[in-house]
Amino acid sequence: MAKPIAVCLLSGGLDSCVATAVAAKDYDLALLHVNYGQRTQARELKAFLDIADFYGVKRRLVTDVPALSQIGGSALTCKEIAIPEGQISSREIPITYVPFRNAHFLAIAVSWGELLGAKRIFIGASQVDFSGYPDCRASFFEAFNRVIEEGTKPETHIRIEAPLLHLTKAQIVKLGVELNAPLHLTWSCYQREDMACGRCESCLLRLKGFREAGLEDPIPYQVPHD
Amino acid sequence: MAKPIAVCLLSGGLDSCVATAVAAKDYDLALLHVNYGQRTQARELKAFLDIADFYGVKRRLVTDVPALSQIGGSALTCKEIAIPEGQISSREIPITYVPFRNAHFLAIAVSWGELLGAKRIFIGASQVDFSGYPDCRASFFEAFNRVIEEGTKPETHIRIEAPLLHLTKAQIVKLGVELNAPLHLTWSCYQREDMACGRCESCLLRLKGFREAGLEDPIPYQVPHD
Repeated sequence: MAKPIAVCLLSGGLDSCVATAVAAKDYDLALLHVNYGQRTQARELKAFLDIADFYGVKRRLVTDVPALSQIGGSALTCKEIAIPEGQISSREIPITYVPFRNAHFLAIAVSWGELLGAKRIFIGASQVDFSGYPDCRASFFEAFNRVIEEGTKPETHIRIEAPLLHLTKAQIVKLGVELNAPLHLTWSCYQREDMACGRCESCLLRLKGFREAGLEDPIPYQVPHD
Repeated sequence: MAKPIAVCLLSGGLDSCVATAVAAKDYDLALLHVNYGQRTQARELKAFLDIADFYGVKRRLVTDVPALSQIGGSALTCKEIAIPEGQISSREIPITYVPFRNAHFLAIAVSWGELLGAKRIFIGASQVDFSGYPDCRASFFEAFNRVIEEGTKPETHIRIEAPLLHLTKAQIVKLGVELNAPLHLTWSCYQREDMACGRCESCLLRLKGFREAGLEDPIPYQVPHD
């Protein structure tokens, strides 16, 4: 019997790559990538395409959400706001928060998934190490599942899976290695596209994850790290 | 005291125009228009701009959701699927349904509204005359309100208002006239941009609404109607 279809939100970062590896075990993949005017848009697209090639997936959708950079208000989409360096934010909502971003991504995944007859949407969100984004919480995804049920055809039943939601970054790294996920193809840096800066909060969190997992991060960094 | 801000989804159709007229009574308007590759995109944009000028609103956002036409599957976004003519659909989900479209529009409204500090989002959805779209139902908007609460900052409290939800098209026409809404500037036709066709389900429903309200529709039609 054919595997059911899952739409995977694949930014090209570490987490979405591991979430895709989890989905690949039981589902036929449909890979979705969204450009939204973020600083490292071109590099993230390359990571997406490399990972899609790695998994041999032909069902791909690359699309744009121009509204998020038109609206601005985040360091990721607005060049006037600097990317914070040197420490990982805790509790407070970081300036890298892009208002309600995951709702846009999920809406695209649902529209596509409804046409494809998909059963699941995979998203690599984690609320453990980096819980500052309100649209990365379990309660958000639960509420969104309800919206999907109410807002689609009666025969459409798509549920969001966030398999990394309760994992630390170190656990995500270990899971990725265990599943042979192509972590060397991923990109997490918020601000550089040639080498990872090693200083933004995304780099710091990733490096901390590899360090705690006792593993070497396979991608190149601009600054030396231990 | 300054009025609170409301983001109004303004396609340029009859319903969104009347919903905007309702919002204008109590709120400072922020008008949002979305191009999504629909057939009458250019004509709808003109209607949006004309209505925005009529209300003297400077806070405007015109944006694109290319994903909906990339995905296709609807007569509104896919040129290979004909727009049905001659009758108004009932019960079954019409081929003009664009999968999960309102979720995309609401996501943009929330992202923008969060930056603006808005309190409300107005949408001109009605489930009375045309209940075939699952993303136009009260239960969908209620579920989406929960998603907004969970997916935005703690200080953000935006609620969706759908003031036409339980009105017939005739009641919407009457309400628009009562509020001096610029119905002559609106555009509802699904397939033509020069004159309304008078045959698609959107035209038929609009004409029926004016007829039942005992009023003349001020826009020009290609085919004569009674």
